Amino acid sequence: MTEPNRQITLKSRPQSHPTLENFALSTAPTPVPGPAEFLVQNLFLSIEPVTRSYIHENKNHSSPVPLGGVIRSFSAGRVVTSRHPDFTEGMHVVGQFGWQEYALSDGQDVRTVDVSEFPLPLHLGVLGTSGLSAWYGLLHVGRPKAGEVVVVSTAAGSVGSAAGQIANQFGCRTVAIAGSEEKARLCKSAYGFSKAINYKNVPEGIGAAVKRACPHGVDIYFDNVGGATLDAILPQLRPGGRVVICGTIANELSPEKSLGPRVERSLLIARARMEGFVILDHLALFPAGLKDLCGWVRDGRLQYREDILAGLENAPAALLRMLSGQNSGKQLVQLNWPRPR
Amino acid sequence: MTEPNRQITLKSRPQSHPTLENFALSTAPTPVPGPAEFLVQNLFLSIEPVTRSYIHENKNHSSPVPLGGVIRSFSAGRVVTSRHPDFTEGMHVVGQFGWQEYALSDGQDVRTVDVSEFPLPLHLGVLGTSGLSAWYGLLHVGRPKAGEVVVVSTAAGSVGSAAGQIANQFGCRTVAIAGSEEKARLCKSAYGFSKAINYKNVPEGIGAAVKRACPHGVDIYFDNVGGATLDAILPQLRPGGRVVICGTIANELSPEKSLGPRVERSLLIARARMEGFVILDHLALFPAGLKDLCGWVRDGRLQYREDILAGLENAPAALLRMLSGQNSGKQLVQLNWPRPR
Repeated sequence: MTEPNRQITLKSRPQSHPTLENFALSTAPTPVPGPAEFLVQNLFLSIEPVTRSYIHENKNHSSPVPLGGVIRSFSAGRVVTSRHPDFTEGMHVVGQFGWQEYALSDGQDVRTVDVSEFPLPLHLGVLGTSGLSAWYGLLHVGRPKAGEVVVVSTAAGSVGSAAGQIANQFGCRTVAIAGSEEKARLCKSAYGFSKAINYKNVPEGIGAAVKRACPHGVDIYFDNVGGATLDAILPQLRPGGRVVICGTIANELSPEKSLGPRVERSLLIARARMEGFVILDHLALFPAGLKDLCGWVRDGRLQYREDILAGLENAPAALLRMLSGQNSGKQLVQLNWPRPR
Repeated sequence: MTEPNRQITLKSRPQSHPTLENFALSTAPTPVPGPAEFLVQNLFLSIEPVTRSYIHENKNHSSPVPLGGVIRSFSAGRVVTSRHPDFTEGMHVVGQFGWQEYALSDGQDVRTVDVSEFPLPLHLGVLGTSGLSAWYGLLHVGRPKAGEVVVVSTAAGSVGSAAGQIANQFGCRTVAIAGSEEKARLCKSAYGFSKAINYKNVPEGIGAAVKRACPHGVDIYFDNVGGATLDAILPQLRPGGRVVICGTIANELSPEKSLGPRVERSLLIARARMEGFVILDHLALFPAGLKDLCGWVRDGRLQYREDILAGLENAPAALLRMLSGQNSGKQLVQLNWPRPR
């Protein structure tokens, strides 16, 4: 394996929102596996909101990607060379292999996936951390009860759409918040939300729109955005309400821009719980989650969409596309093999 | 019973902090019990921070006291006339009888107390909703584990001092935040906190002071105040940290003054939980809580202080005294019987 390894690396840290200029297309030698290691050829990259935090220097649940480092992300590929007893050539694997063509691995936190029933990209989306985040966040953090009202933000996204459908299965009434008329329609037609709000078209404000959709209040808010939407929903929590903090994409990452209404009194009055989680803390629950998710995809109860761009070099554009909400469903980048000339 | 019933009533709603002018000393006829009712003669009034919310018009977990209405609070007294089968003359009772000399009751949410072992005022403090708030909030909301770091605000108060001592019994390391040098000393000497911070004397700021006391972060913050102290502690939560919202006395009650740093990202990064509770939701757990609390008071593991003013007419002053932190321990008002001329 003497082919060069093309990578997307961090050229500069964004001040606030990332731009294409923050990324570089670099080339490094393709690594050679040592004992108990294997080489993965990436086939699909998972484009994830959390990348925005990884490339910042601000405090996060994970250390920042260093300048010049390969952008961290999940991806799916196949083992092409192996000196590891458990990973053999031709196996399909998912792991944090980053935005590059080839990655070396010792197998830690890598899972092998069976592509005979579900195609490879699904294992990055509805059967990957997106679906698992919805499953864990809703069921283990939110703990829905039949008849409760569940509001989901970025409801047409890969996590939100799954969270809504899982809530429906548990007998909840679901309300979607999404960023376009088309997405709002999709939330109802494909993902089964009872109501859907296009937050970009609510002249009365998002708070009033939520109140109209949930006149008796909100039991669970599955939050992928934070910011003004969270502020509007917090005072509408019913007694014993829960806010599941799955993502904070609406937040400025600069702390000086991060004032908002105080929350403690709303939480006290509603006797409510607000709780953050990071899905990578819960690897031990992945088999249980995947068993549920596979079953629901198999019998059609869990619908999903994928949005696939082609070419490693388009990964930064795919990230910006997703951060500005232009995608619909799980954003992926498919690597071209053989490479285009 | 033709004696007049003296009452403290709400004369006007405070704009922000209550003043003596918001209260009036009124007189009403002493009520006469109907079938299945009884009359209580109040002996001690519980002076409670929550009264500040009850007399405001802002949204709260309980409806506001109407203008002219008797101020709502717990008190302890004895049954003087009864037509209720379960409450007989001479029994000691605790309930929401309000700031008045006599109260009519149908027995709902009233508990009888045995004063043979523990004097009556204790049933409003360490063996009342103060102790129960500490017990429920720490054990059921905070869920401490041995070795964890627990920070408590208003730590010399009736709730905070109990929360710290209960945390110590569960093997936690406890850090007190209190409002004077004397209270900070008391937190260590009487209530067994490992460290105590006088938040009025931290030139480096409360955040730095907490960081010095908890260099490895905070597992549980038992919060009785909200506001700037909460803001300073939230980014110092350890992974899986919990914030127990028991009170928000540092908050302005006017929403327009209530901006603060956004919390969702801190909660996400720390995978933390922030949860409010209202002790009156958990009446069913009172027997279990009181069993624990009585046992700990009996064997000396749960220390407490009481701060008792005399005379119904001094209840408003006692409230202002407590809101400005001049009390130490449970603030009570003892009613004078016979009345002074």
